[in-house]
Amino acid sequence: MIETPYLLFLGDAPDQLAAKVAQGIKDWRPENAVGQYRMTGCKADVGLTDMTLAEARDAGAKTLVIGVANRGGVISQSWKDVLISALEMGFDLASGLHNLLRDEDDLVAAAQSHGRTLHDVRVPSVNYPIANGVKRSGKRVLAVGTDCSVGKMYTALALDAAMRERGMKSTFRATGQTGILITGDGVPLDAVIADFMAGSIEYLCPDNDDDHWDIIEGQGSLFHVSFSGVTMALIHGGQPDALILSHEPSRAHMRGLPDYQLPSLETLRDTALPLARVSNPACQVVGISVNTQHMSEDEALTYLAAVEKRMGLPAVDPFRQGAERLADALAAL
Amino acid sequence: MIETPYLLFLGDAPDQLAAKVAQGIKDWRPENAVGQYRMTGCKADVGLTDMTLAEARDAGAKTLVIGVANRGGVISQSWKDVLISALEMGFDLASGLHNLLRDEDDLVAAAQSHGRTLHDVRVPSVNYPIANGVKRSGKRVLAVGTDCSVGKMYTALALDAAMRERGMKSTFRATGQTGILITGDGVPLDAVIADFMAGSIEYLCPDNDDDHWDIIEGQGSLFHVSFSGVTMALIHGGQPDALILSHEPSRAHMRGLPDYQLPSLETLRDTALPLARVSNPACQVVGISVNTQHMSEDEALTYLAAVEKRMGLPAVDPFRQGAERLADALAAL
Repeated sequence: MIETPYLLFLGDAPDQLAAKVAQGIKDWRPENAVGQYRMTGCKADVGLTDMTLAEARDAGAKTLVIGVANRGGVISQSWKDVLISALEMGFDLASGLHNLLRDEDDLVAAAQSHGRTLHDVRVPSVNYPIANGVKRSGKRVLAVGTDCSVGKMYTALALDAAMRERGMKSTFRATGQTGILITGDGVPLDAVIADFMAGSIEYLCPDNDDDHWDIIEGQGSLFHVSFSGVTMALIHGGQPDALILSHEPSRAHMRGLPDYQLPSLETLRDTALPLARVSNPACQVVGISVNTQHMSEDEALTYLAAVEKRMGLPAVDPFRQGAERLADALAAL
Repeated sequence: MIETPYLLFLGDAPDQLAAKVAQGIKDWRPENAVGQYRMTGCKADVGLTDMTLAEARDAGAKTLVIGVANRGGVISQSWKDVLISALEMGFDLASGLHNLLRDEDDLVAAAQSHGRTLHDVRVPSVNYPIANGVKRSGKRVLAVGTDCSVGKMYTALALDAAMRERGMKSTFRATGQTGILITGDGVPLDAVIADFMAGSIEYLCPDNDDDHWDIIEGQGSLFHVSFSGVTMALIHGGQPDALILSHEPSRAHMRGLPDYQLPSLETLRDTALPLARVSNPACQVVGISVNTQHMSEDEALTYLAAVEKRMGLPAVDPFRQGAERLADALAAL
């Protein structure tokens, strides 16, 4: 568990896209961030107040979160100067970088001498159990995709926001490093050892109130041969009551796999639902989220209407339209 | 890669079952073992010549393989006396125990001072790649089960033996610690990090001759919620040309999951085959292996005949009958 609120470190980001982790925190958990820290030459701005370390500390920030990708596979000396100052001033550090903070001797030494914590959210910090499959109380929803990176995290966060807004009990359960940094907690599923994958998801979304929804962040795709095992573990460890089908219509092939075509939404439904019913016989497919970023507004609305008619399920782009209709579908279950 | 031949360490095994790893090596790769080493009080005997360390060394043994389960989660001092003597005499050590050899300071010190290797086959020793899904040459067969521990490894080893006997090119590809110790090589799939599971299987069974069969050891079950992700990664990483359905008819419920029923062979077929065709559109289900150990001979033959008729596929118990008819089915593909 990462202590909040955060100061978001944007470093010397070369462009806005490099700061997408910080942007995600700002968009989805603005209450978790008191401000942003930008170095000379930083080309990103997530729209928070620029602060020095001292100003952020005075504003109550507990953790400096690295909200930006690094370059060249190294943590530069100019970054380290800031990070070490932050540790000296009493901040913890949190990072989802491939380069681990714990592998940097100077950061480790500074953290130890100031009694601070280094959070590397790419690496599990828990010894997860083997899944036991026992039925849990509370409700769970999982987005499954025709491919990787089709908007499953965005769908889950938008759904969580829509459900909270109408007073439903919901919790976004992060399974990847960006989601973990946004919420301060979660399971870095892609780094979990095979035998414990499903168990880590049982650990992530335990028994809860009967009217509480865990919104589990999806990963991979049953149809993506590199990562389908991770998706399978999410489906069985998650015991979802509801599935949402996620799709990005402009893909020419599966992400990173030029010889593999995307399945249809029907094939995804007919594959995922029987597998989900192994762990939860009551599971239903309740809706469809489509990432229409490469379509005009008219094209998107036409496409969504056609999918909705064809599949007999609410079909929305949560980015364009919000996820209210998906929340409706869950409320009606 | 573990150096062969082996001396099989049976220790102070309390019964024959405790030595099942050694028995597997003796049954399936007798050419890999020059003899067995038994301590005072050993109640197991795999039928090899009893040898001292010196006799085994003179007979050419390179590695002392721990072919017995340990008790109480520790490697006892009486075992260690033998293991350290073996290292001093020039043997490598190989073990599939949960307690790692590398975590024992005295074994590590002895191995270092004598230039020997400690093989802990439960732990990956390779940085596996992420799967790329590229079509590989050669042919592959995988057994998938209605449950865990229904005889998939036995089926694969029996099939490999039958294929070799008739001069077909085949290689058993181990994915668990027993299989790795039997053959000296393989991938300990349950200990691989999630993102690299399918990649580890691509690594395990690379391009090969067009008429060569890799017989991939199955793990878990698509219907076992604790381990289904591992099975999924095997199916997609393996790119199987052929599936064999494996079943144990006497199970009252899924192994370790009292609330979960086994699927029918039809459900297994209809679930596994479409998933396998994602990575290999030509994949076929070619036969069925049934573990009939809890049936009389008559019951078993009646059961197998009924399954064969119902499913329209050869159905055999490889332990009772050998795997020749499964080899026939592969040869006919």
